[in-house]
Amino acid sequence: MSFIKNLQRRWSQSNSLVCVGLDPEPAKFPAHLRDDPDAVFAFCKAIVDATADLVCCFKPQIAHFAALGAEDALQRLIAHIHVAHPGVPVILDAKRGDIGSTAQNYAIEAFDRYGADAVTANPYLGRDSVQPFLDRADKGVVILCRTSNPGASDFQDLDVSGKPLFQHVAETVARDWNGNGNCALVVGATWPEQLREVRAIVGDMPLLIPGVGAQGGDVEAVVTNGRTSAGNGLIISSSRAILYASPGEDFADAARKATLELRDAINRYRSVA
Amino acid sequence: MSFIKNLQRRWSQSNSLVCVGLDPEPAKFPAHLRDDPDAVFAFCKAIVDATADLVCCFKPQIAHFAALGAEDALQRLIAHIHVAHPGVPVILDAKRGDIGSTAQNYAIEAFDRYGADAVTANPYLGRDSVQPFLDRADKGVVILCRTSNPGASDFQDLDVSGKPLFQHVAETVARDWNGNGNCALVVGATWPEQLREVRAIVGDMPLLIPGVGAQGGDVEAVVTNGRTSAGNGLIISSSRAILYASPGEDFADAARKATLELRDAINRYRSVA
Repeated sequence: MSFIKNLQRRWSQSNSLVCVGLDPEPAKFPAHLRDDPDAVFAFCKAIVDATADLVCCFKPQIAHFAALGAEDALQRLIAHIHVAHPGVPVILDAKRGDIGSTAQNYAIEAFDRYGADAVTANPYLGRDSVQPFLDRADKGVVILCRTSNPGASDFQDLDVSGKPLFQHVAETVARDWNGNGNCALVVGATWPEQLREVRAIVGDMPLLIPGVGAQGGDVEAVVTNGRTSAGNGLIISSSRAILYASPGEDFADAARKATLELRDAINRYRSVA
Repeated sequence: MSFIKNLQRRWSQSNSLVCVGLDPEPAKFPAHLRDDPDAVFAFCKAIVDATADLVCCFKPQIAHFAALGAEDALQRLIAHIHVAHPGVPVILDAKRGDIGSTAQNYAIEAFDRYGADAVTANPYLGRDSVQPFLDRADKGVVILCRTSNPGASDFQDLDVSGKPLFQHVAETVARDWNGNGNCALVVGATWPEQLREVRAIVGDMPLLIPGVGAQGGDVEAVVTNGRTSAGNGLIISSSRAILYASPGEDFADAARKATLELRDAINRYRSVA
């Protein structure tokens, strides 16, 4: 089943738009895990197993593994999700983008080596830089549009013929890049007005929304501005607020509780009046 | 010594603006290496040792290693360059870009884990996404400006207040991001006119130029449009045309010959009349 179809099924099955971002930071792990030589895998696996029924997908962030030389843990973690929680898609957050044979190799890295169901990509290099991702019709390609960080405005908001650059990205992806129907866009939770503009451009295309929680994005504003007429269309990602909800041995229970609270907070605003 | 100072010294010492791109593709390796379990390292090491005196730097492309699960070979390769060829800087071509703690982790990946002297980065997310790289004053940050691929025009050429987006990137980097004097830009060899425009904006800032050779960039046009008044300022990268100059056991000799030819072709146009 394709990533997008799987995601749609998952929105219903789990009654959740929450995506748990897996950004392991060993310095924040509970004390009892710190001497575990396989702590990165053990920590992430515990979070996954405690929250899988409450999420529409998981999103491991590759830099957090790469900085630790923990590629092997990442590979085992994604394999574990597929085996233990079948039907829960995995978005590899890698923000890749390069040309020609290099882009091909990034697609191999994400989809074949790691077995991810979708990958995040950067649009700056243009269509051929994401073509090897787009060509994998069963996989998802989640393209940066308007990101959640303060510096996002440096280029993404520049005025291009009367519209900000990020709207051109949204239009280009919706019009030209989505032939296989496997595209999605990243729009930060910190910019609800831009989220509404992007939703108007892209119809029912899924939007990945980072920035709820630690980065300060407001749940009501995100959901009411970003939902589709069916009351979904959003992948609302939270990492730190869930992963490190408790510094103690109860971290997985605390993560479950935080995920449940976020799911319910989101669900209050999903129905279109 | 900082990356930029080291590069400047290296331009003189080697009398070369050539950068050999290390993009291992095992299917193109000579037959005698294909059964070697450490073929990726062995191939790249042989290329490095055959060309080090003829280059201003090396540029390993990380996707080619990541697709193979060959992080360990990349780590050993960069360590080998530092030990066997001290003073030859290494640019890790990774085109990274992300926010907050993730950007920090990408800096750790490139500079601490792999020991690279510089890294390529994507500007789309704005200043805070490259800040952890910029903060490492001894390291180089090589930011995508106008890339060499056909799709580069999709967004990089969009008109922003009368100027293409890539010129805004060049101006922003030169004016706001280069406080530590450690920035460089990527400008494809396939666009000599844009190269001249970028050179006019950024003064003596180093420019990394991919796309000579296999991608069809013209050496004379690149050098005359991109050189500084001192006749350098360019890192002219070639990968396939050097790495795979011969499919046989003589691949390293052939790579040396191809590097020498490119160096000499470039040097014919370096002096400013």
